This record gives sequence, structure tokens and C-alpha cells, in this order.
Amino acid sequence: MDKVNLTEGFAKIAEHWRPRVVAELNGQEVKLVKFEGPFIWHQHDHEEELFLVVKGRFRMEFRDRSVDLEEGELLVVPRGVEHRPVAEAEVEILLFEPKGVLNTGNRLDALYTAPLGQRL
Amino acid sequence: MDKVNLTEGFAKIAEHWRPRVVAELNGQEVKLVKFEGPFIWHQHDHEEELFLVVKGRFRMEFRDRSVDLEEGELLVVPRGVEHRPVAEAEVEILLFEPKGVLNTGNRLDALYTAPLGQRL
Repeated sequence: MDKVNLTEGFAKIAEHWRPRVVAELNGQEVKLVKFEGPFIWHQHDHEEELFLVVKGRFRMEFRDRSVDLEEGELLVVPRGVEHRPVAEAEVEILLFEPKGVLNTGNRLDALYTAPLGQRL
Repeated sequence: MDKVNLTEGFAKIAEHWRPRVVAELNGQEVKLVKFEGPFIWHQHDHEEELFLVVKGRFRMEFRDRSVDLEEGELLVVPRGVEHRPVAEAEVEILLFEPKGVLNTGNRLDALYTAPLGQRL
């Protein structure tokens, strides 16, 4: 039962697009991830995903619109909805989602797919 | 699918100790709450609870120790473990926990027990 300091956690993360698990509760995981640039279009057929901007900003693109997210803003992406995060500069994100969610959802491109359950 | 701005959310909260739901996903709720002073000792027999300090600081007391939490720090309280948050000055907290968790857990003191599922 140790606390997690977000600043210290992000300082340990060098790679972009690789979520790292920092806490687990009720079958859900809290992950830290850094984004930069455009990700790939994907969807999660069975899970909703929460994105909370801890530092920086990014744009969540959907097929029919997009949502600009600033520091201290959060967004829940519904299951089955195609989305693509795009960050013009590096951004620090906290994710909440069920254990075992693959970052690339229905896409398994080797370039971006990160290992599951990787602890920080 | 609207974003939530934490600063704007907390600005709408006047009362202490009354969590307000701002998002729901995968059977879990994201809540905002303001603490000030000592809460009551309680436990959640079936759920784990996550506390993330958005602004300010507080101390989570357990029967055998305590954890000081600063802005940008999070803590997961395991199920079945008695705890009591204490804030010397007002603090803004984001909670993540399963839908339907009562803020006072096994205690039903009218003074503190907040309505379930109350949206902001």
C-alpha cells in the first residue's frame, strides 16, 4: 500500500505510447503513458478507456469529430468507437481501464503494441 | 462523450465529504470530492478505493500508520482496511471506485453519508 507520485513516475518513462501500470484495483489498472505525434486508429470492442491529461495537451480524434484536451481534463472513450490520439508535443497521460486492455485495441501493429501489465 | 475539466468541476462543489460523479466506465465511477478536517474511521468490505490529490494535501490514517499525500500523488486503499482521511486545509480529490460505493463504507452516520451516484 504505497503511494504513487505521478511526477516521479513520468520521469521514469522514456518511450512514447507504452503504458506502464502503477496501480491496480477492482480489476482495473491505472497506467501512465507519454504520447507524442499521431497514434494509430483503433477501437476497444469491450472496454471503455479514460484519459486524464496530467501535463501538456493532446487531441482525441474520432471519425466524425475531435476533442482537444488540456491539462486537468479527462475524457472517456466508449467501447467500439474508433479513436486516435494525436499530440503535437509530448503529453503525460493517466489511463484508467480494465486489466488486460491492449493499447492498440483491435490493431496489433508491432510498431505500437505494448506489452500487457508492464509495471513501472 | 464530453470531456470533464477538473478545475471547473471542483468550482461547482461547495460541500465537503460529498463525492460527485463526473464519469462512469466499466462499472466504475470517477468522482470529485473536497475534504476538510477529519473524516470518520470506516472500511469498504468489498471494494478498493483510489484517491488522487488534484490540489492540496491530506493524510490517510490507518490503524497502524499513516500516509501523507501531496498534489499529484495517488493511493489505493485495499478492501477491508480501516482508514480515515484527515485534511488540515481543504483538499481536492479525484476518486476512482466501483459504482455504488458508499463514502462511509460500513458506517452509516447521517452526518457524513453522501447520496450514491450523485452527478456533478
